[in-house]
Amino acid sequence: MKKSIAIDMDGVLADVERHFFDWYHRDYGIRFTRQDVLGKDERTAFPDPDAVMRFVYTPGFFRSLPVMADAVESVKELMKEYEVYIVSAAMEFPLSLPEKLDWLKEHFPFIGWRNIIFCGDKSIINVDYMIDDHCKNLDFCKGKTIMFAAYHNAAHTHHQRAEDWKEVMALFKKEVEAK
Amino acid sequence: MKKSIAIDMDGVLADVERHFFDWYHRDYGIRFTRQDVLGKDERTAFPDPDAVMRFVYTPGFFRSLPVMADAVESVKELMKEYEVYIVSAAMEFPLSLPEKLDWLKEHFPFIGWRNIIFCGDKSIINVDYMIDDHCKNLDFCKGKTIMFAAYHNAAHTHHQRAEDWKEVMALFKKEVEAK
Repeated sequence: MKKSIAIDMDGVLADVERHFFDWYHRDYGIRFTRQDVLGKDERTAFPDPDAVMRFVYTPGFFRSLPVMADAVESVKELMKEYEVYIVSAAMEFPLSLPEKLDWLKEHFPFIGWRNIIFCGDKSIINVDYMIDDHCKNLDFCKGKTIMFAAYHNAAHTHHQRAEDWKEVMALFKKEVEAK
Repeated sequence: MKKSIAIDMDGVLADVERHFFDWYHRDYGIRFTRQDVLGKDERTAFPDPDAVMRFVYTPGFFRSLPVMADAVESVKELMKEYEVYIVSAAMEFPLSLPEKLDWLKEHFPFIGWRNIIFCGDKSIINVDYMIDDHCKNLDFCKGKTIMFAAYHNAAHTHHQRAEDWKEVMALFKKEVEAK
């Protein structure tokens, strides 16, 4: 049986950070970079502390997220060796559910409905590997964890970190070689 | 830590069978009972083999499902002792997602978003107990399984069966006594 990987959407497949920067620039005229917000959270990252919450509750926000660099090719590659599940903690934002499905259909049409999971808490998700940008999800995982770098998780080093999809794929290459 | 239970929606919390009978009667003028369809599947249960598929793709079908007898009080009772997750294989019918959330909000408002999971395949759901009406979900569960009786599963006896929520609760009472 193939080993399983749970891959998060926001911050891993979808570049939420860049979308925040773009929308903040559009609405406030100020352009931020990762360096500006490194180590901060959603309420402290930008001068207007309510901006991020307003963005994520705006219809169309999740549907228009840019795809993370190299995510499409990497997921395709991983699917050759692993059973890949897309696991998104989408229940906090119920209006995002159809947008997230449409987004996956557009950018990752090769992922079938059987392998998509929208949840609240990820603690009952049982997989061999989990790629996520949040401790709250990775900390409960019984399998191997990879923390995908984001501005808000810069200080967390108790999970294997990957700066981008190239580093994720290098880690999986090592897994194959170690077999 | 509380033990966890995954509870299915269709056929367990929601009385899909009764809804099929009601809609079939409404559209075709024939009233069926469980005895009439026992052991059959969705394509052989009714004279029109396409009826069930047409029903489940009709907007409003999932939103208007009747609640299974004793389900609300039973789930409330279980939540005192267990961490209860609602796990629905909803991804096959993407249009049902918002309807299912609204339905839960109306009938089970005491279940928070952290404990709701919409998935395709349930094989990566890791819980201590799973209550479901389908072998395809129960067969993969590493915890204890309870098969909730439905017309289509009458012939399957390799899981502990429960005819209704009263029998489910009697089984959990035994679990507590066995501690």
